Amino acid sequence: MKFSFKNDYSEGCHPNILQALVQTNLNQQAGYGEDEYSAQAKKLIKDKIKNQDSDVYLVSGGTQANLIVISSILRPYQCVISAAPGHILNNETGAIEATGHKVLSIETEDGKLRPADIIPVLESHSNVPHQVMPKLVYISNSTELGTIYLAHELEELSVFCRQNGLYLFMDGARLGHGLTSEISDLTLERVAELTDIFYLGGTKNGAVIGEAIVINNKDLQPDFAFNIKQKGALLAKGRLLGIQFMELMKDDLYFDLAKHANIQAMKIKNAMKERGVQFLSDTYTNQIFPIISNELIEILSEHFEFYVWKKIDEQSSAIRLITSWNTGDEAVERFIELIQKEL
Amino acid sequence: MKFSFKNDYSEGCHPNILQALVQTNLNQQAGYGEDEYSAQAKKLIKDKIKNQDSDVYLVSGGTQANLIVISSILRPYQCVISAAPGHILNNETGAIEATGHKVLSIETEDGKLRPADIIPVLESHSNVPHQVMPKLVYISNSTELGTIYLAHELEELSVFCRQNGLYLFMDGARLGHGLTSEISDLTLERVAELTDIFYLGGTKNGAVIGEAIVINNKDLQPDFAFNIKQKGALLAKGRLLGIQFMELMKDDLYFDLAKHANIQAMKIKNAMKERGVQFLSDTYTNQIFPIISNELIEILSEHFEFYVWKKIDEQSSAIRLITSWNTGDEAVERFIELIQKEL
Amino acid sequence: MKFSFKNDYSEGCHPNILQALVQTNLNQQAGYGEDEYSAQAKKLIKDKIKNQDSDVYLVSGGTQANLIVISSILRPYQCVISAAPGHILNNETGAIEATGHKVLSIETEDGKLRPADIIPVLESHSNVPHQVMPKLVYISNSTELGTIYLAHELEELSVFCRQNGLYLFMDGARLGHGLTSEISDLTLERVAELTDIFYLGGTKNGAVIGEAIVINNKDLQPDFAFNIKQKGALLAKGRLLGIQFMELMKDDLYFDLAKHANIQAMKIKNAMKERGVQFLSDTYTNQIFPIISNELIEILSEHFEFYVWKKIDEQSSAIRLITSWNTGDEAVERFIELIQKEL
Amino acid sequence: MKFSFKNDYSEGCHPNILQALVQTNLNQQAGYGEDEYSAQAKKLIKDKIKNQDSDVYLVSGGTQANLIVISSILRPYQCVISAAPGHILNNETGAIEATGHKVLSIETEDGKLRPADIIPVLESHSNVPHQVMPKLVYISNSTELGTIYLAHELEELSVFCRQNGLYLFMDGARLGHGLTSEISDLTLERVAELTDIFYLGGTKNGAVIGEAIVINNKDLQPDFAFNIKQKGALLAKGRLLGIQFMELMKDDLYFDLAKHANIQAMKIKNAMKERGVQFLSDTYTNQIFPIISNELIEILSEHFEFYVWKKIDEQSSAIRLITSWNTGDEAVERFIELIQKEL
Repeated sequence: MKFSFKNDYSEGCHPNILQALVQTNLNQQAGYGEDEYSAQAKKLIKDKIKNQDSDVYLVSGGTQANLIVISSILRPYQCVISAAPGHILNNETGAIEATGHKVLSIETEDGKLRPADIIPVLESHSNVPHQVMPKLVYISNSTELGTIYLAHELEELSVFCRQNGLYLFMDGARLGHGLTSEISDLTLERVAELTDIFYLGGTKNGAVIGEAIVINNKDLQPDFAFNIKQKGALLAKGRLLGIQFMELMKDDLYFDLAKHANIQAMKIKNAMKERGVQFLSDTYTNQIFPIISNELIEILSEHFEFYVWKKIDEQSSAIRLITSWNTGDEAVERFIELIQKEL
Repeated sequence: MKFSFKNDYSEGCHPNILQALVQTNLNQQAGYGEDEYSAQAKKLIKDKIKNQDSDVYLVSGGTQANLIVISSILRPYQCVISAAPGHILNNETGAIEATGHKVLSIETEDGKLRPADIIPVLESHSNVPHQVMPKLVYISNSTELGTIYLAHELEELSVFCRQNGLYLFMDGARLGHGLTSEISDLTLERVAELTDIFYLGGTKNGAVIGEAIVINNKDLQPDFAFNIKQKGALLAKGRLLGIQFMELMKDDLYFDLAKHANIQAMKIKNAMKERGVQFLSDTYTNQIFPIISNELIEILSEHFEFYVWKKIDEQSSAIRLITSWNTGDEAVERFIELIQKEL
Repeated sequence: MKFSFKNDYSEGCHPNILQALVQTNLNQQAGYGEDEYSAQAKKLIKDKIKNQDSDVYLVSGGTQANLIVISSILRPYQCVISAAPGHILNNETGAIEATGHKVLSIETEDGKLRPADIIPVLESHSNVPHQVMPKLVYISNSTELGTIYLAHELEELSVFCRQNGLYLFMDGARLGHGLTSEISDLTLERVAELTDIFYLGGTKNGAVIGEAIVINNKDLQPDFAFNIKQKGALLAKGRLLGIQFMELMKDDLYFDLAKHANIQAMKIKNAMKERGVQFLSDTYTNQIFPIISNELIEILSEHFEFYVWKKIDEQSSAIRLITSWNTGDEAVERFIELIQKEL
Repeated sequence: MKFSFKNDYSEGCHPNILQALVQTNLNQQAGYGEDEYSAQAKKLIKDKIKNQDSDVYLVSGGTQANLIVISSILRPYQCVISAAPGHILNNETGAIEATGHKVLSIETEDGKLRPADIIPVLESHSNVPHQVMPKLVYISNSTELGTIYLAHELEELSVFCRQNGLYLFMDGARLGHGLTSEISDLTLERVAELTDIFYLGGTKNGAVIGEAIVINNKDLQPDFAFNIKQKGALLAKGRLLGIQFMELMKDDLYFDLAKHANIQAMKIKNAMKERGVQFLSDTYTNQIFPIISNELIEILSEHFEFYVWKKIDEQSSAIRLITSWNTGDEAVERFIELIQKEL
């Protein structure tokens, strides 16, 4: 069987999690997230962001987190602003629109939003009441293109949003990878200060399912649990989510796993760079997009699985390689050797 | 008071309609569109399209027609394709999204959609089930930019939609103007043959309110009335809509009114063209978009009302002039004289 | 043709309205409710409720008013409380649910809600977050059964709602009839003080279309116009609504028309009572529900149209008779004569 | 710590599942339900219902399954019919209404629906298009009251639904318990024949999360996966669901676990019956509702957890006891001993 670099959710979960599931399995617990493991997980997250006043909720997946957060915040006539590659725009089957809200798309080179990108959208939506009212800015970190927000970028965006009455929501499906990137100067604590709401992704970083939604803006906290239940996201055995985040948050396992994934990707990136390979974008997280010849793609495909991402010209395409918390040295070395042999 | 070229809904309604309202006023009639005037109006429309198998429903306005038609047709995960200037995209406060459906936007020069515009959208929405499914093509005739579909253009689009399992829906808020344009070779009968569903706009063509939805595709006919009622669009006194379309459809009044509006606009257009004025797009309906200097805009504004549509450069902008069924010769002549004096 | 007592929307509109439509017809006006007639109508309404701080919006019909008001107020997980005969529960094709909100039904004898009816609903919805959160109380005056709220009843309900964090919304499709009932001690001004939001129905009281929504609670005022546009209820020619309410509010025409309808109904009621007829409920507005024999129903049906409302036993049923602003003495007298002859 | 009879989701999952999770953990698999374990689970289910033409989808929980199934089937103006204790009516925070659909409630003694219950609902919803159109009958087996459908009851309901153009949907959150009840004469195969769609609940029968939706009616199968993704229910690591149902379906583990839960409940029921205890309803599944004195409730509460379900009079209440796949003999015996001692 070929080793897969297709995504970061090909494996199950970190062994610590399995072990905790086994150890706690027959303990009777209250249902619907009222179990003691969930309580402990939430406490660990609040400790890490150094804010006991934030509210934490655990749900199963990213699309679920996105649709619950957005529909809980917006009034019917309000809409979302997202960078064009935003997951909610392209990969969630219209989940946000299904809750009644438009998502405005902004073209950006690197998948990140800056105040200068948003200003024209606000200006072109001033025909009250004939147009939707932009109210929430949706960003991802790391983005769908593998890029990350630096501290000053997030700060500028946060200030801009607050000045303009916009909520700032960070999709953190790969927040671990974003924060442990070698070029990142952001901390989880700072993310919590600068956003109204964000989530810590588990599914793509060592959990089998699970995202932890953190609500920092107190105006957005009341009654949030109703939205989770109404959208079918309140697990009877919430312990499954609690146990996972309890384990991931212990001793920074969450960040260690993400860092490992980043390091493995960077090894491949550097090896390819040394051989003169160009990249679609200059990423420092667990997603890389090298541009290689069709011949090389064919050779690599005999030994590895990955996505051909974007055709560049008749002779070459960008491929996408993703590493995970569990991508071992052996696979990375085999891949690099093959590159070095062929280039 | 300044004469307004701002839009085609500044006046009340055609005198024939008022007269009919007065004459029928105290006749007791069944409610909710079951009155005899609505029946007669529907018959006249079916006669005009030469198809007794189409279903006709009368509603108050365009946004209402658009949201009822689209939400009645699509399954929750299906979406609409529209040209970027489409009314549903920009001027209806997210009414379509509020019913749960995404609207995909396609950039086009002239506000019209062609198969070549749609093919890439279909190709980029093949990641089942992670993306919305394009299912309905929304077009306007005349378009929001004043342009129109020629017969062969609508035919090609219709064939393409049928081959690709897409419904074709024509927003006819200004269908009278589209069909009576001097360059149009389309007929109402042909529109009914080539679309699955369309509507005849009354509000912008001599009615005080009212759009007539015509459902040609028999698959889309069952139970349609439920959608009208559910969205709050079933008037208790449906006679108000019936009487208006009864009058408009008599002796082609509907088309005469639209033609009049077009002619008045063409007079202004030609006068400006003679003086060397350029236009944002080459339209032959009741909307024109001349590009003129800021100085001229200021002078015209002293005597007429109109929208400044789009800044072209520091010295000039395109303005939008709209004529209506009731735009008299006197106002047009005054406008032309002013142009001729100043240019 | 048989005279119809089926409903109060069988005729067109009051002649004053037609006259005003004719007189103003060719005046150019701003669109979308920004016309001077709408401004004047709104001012007249605010004067009548003696509250310049309320906001007034004009829409076409009752279902539209109900769905816009309710969906604009509630968060996704909140629901409405209504008496079982409530129009939104039975006669609007699930319009409220279509905006995402449950309507809880309370059985009551007379179609009215009292605090004692609501308390058990609140108590049985305490399982947070597994149940919807009751947040808005919907009442009608006059009710769907023709009954009305007395001042002390509305006061008690209002106090209860404010104490329990519930909004109070009055459907006033027949508010004129409710307030001019011979037993009513409520005033329009008092209705505005005691409710968060209500509307004055025009369609059933002399207008051809139109309901005037009055928002008294300042928390519910911001951005309301967006909801109207999004739901397809913002008429391009808002003048049609403005002119009607301008005329209806002049010199209390609105109340005179309602009072007339009530009086005509009471004449019939009293004539039947004199002959020993029982009624389904003891109403004092323009709806009466006499219980008569099947034979009498048959005889009456030869000369008049009305609904057979409810089967009482094998020999008799309750019928519903509704009078309108335009129900003349002649028809009433003919009906009474027939009754007197047959009973 | 007190042993809990509060519900059947207090523990984790069956050890076989944990073992399989451990064994497969590091195998790379395709995402989003395309893994080999999900394929195997679906095959096992189709084998058990002896219908390879049914479609099977795995989702996380019951509310999720209910809202996805119902919103995928109904047109906007159609509604659901449910018995009054139905889970979708009382315990899902308006999840169905949030997708735009009304749920009509029918009072029944035992939580089951029969044709005679549904006929009046159909008859009272004939005012087209002013009322919602009943289209889907929602039932649970076992019901929320612990009762079950016998074969002839389900057959009569199925025939009735097909004759009346209604879909029949069975919520099977506790289907294992229903089918293994000592009085049940239904089989899983027969359930699949008689319903259009149903699901097999895992969460309450040994899985940590998971319900298996089975679509038997071929008209309801196309595009179903889009609905799952759009509602946020498509797990990236679908393997978690696949592995669980793979294990549960092996060698009838699913039914063995349910039967065990039923047997434990019956032991308690019989012991109480012997001492003269009355029950709220005569159930033969893992939910029992004994009516006992307040004194006894207090004594039992010192040693066990359970819900006080319904006050009967000043001296006594019905309590709810639920047993699970993991309720051991020791706890049951302790409970019975206490009963025998006190009664």
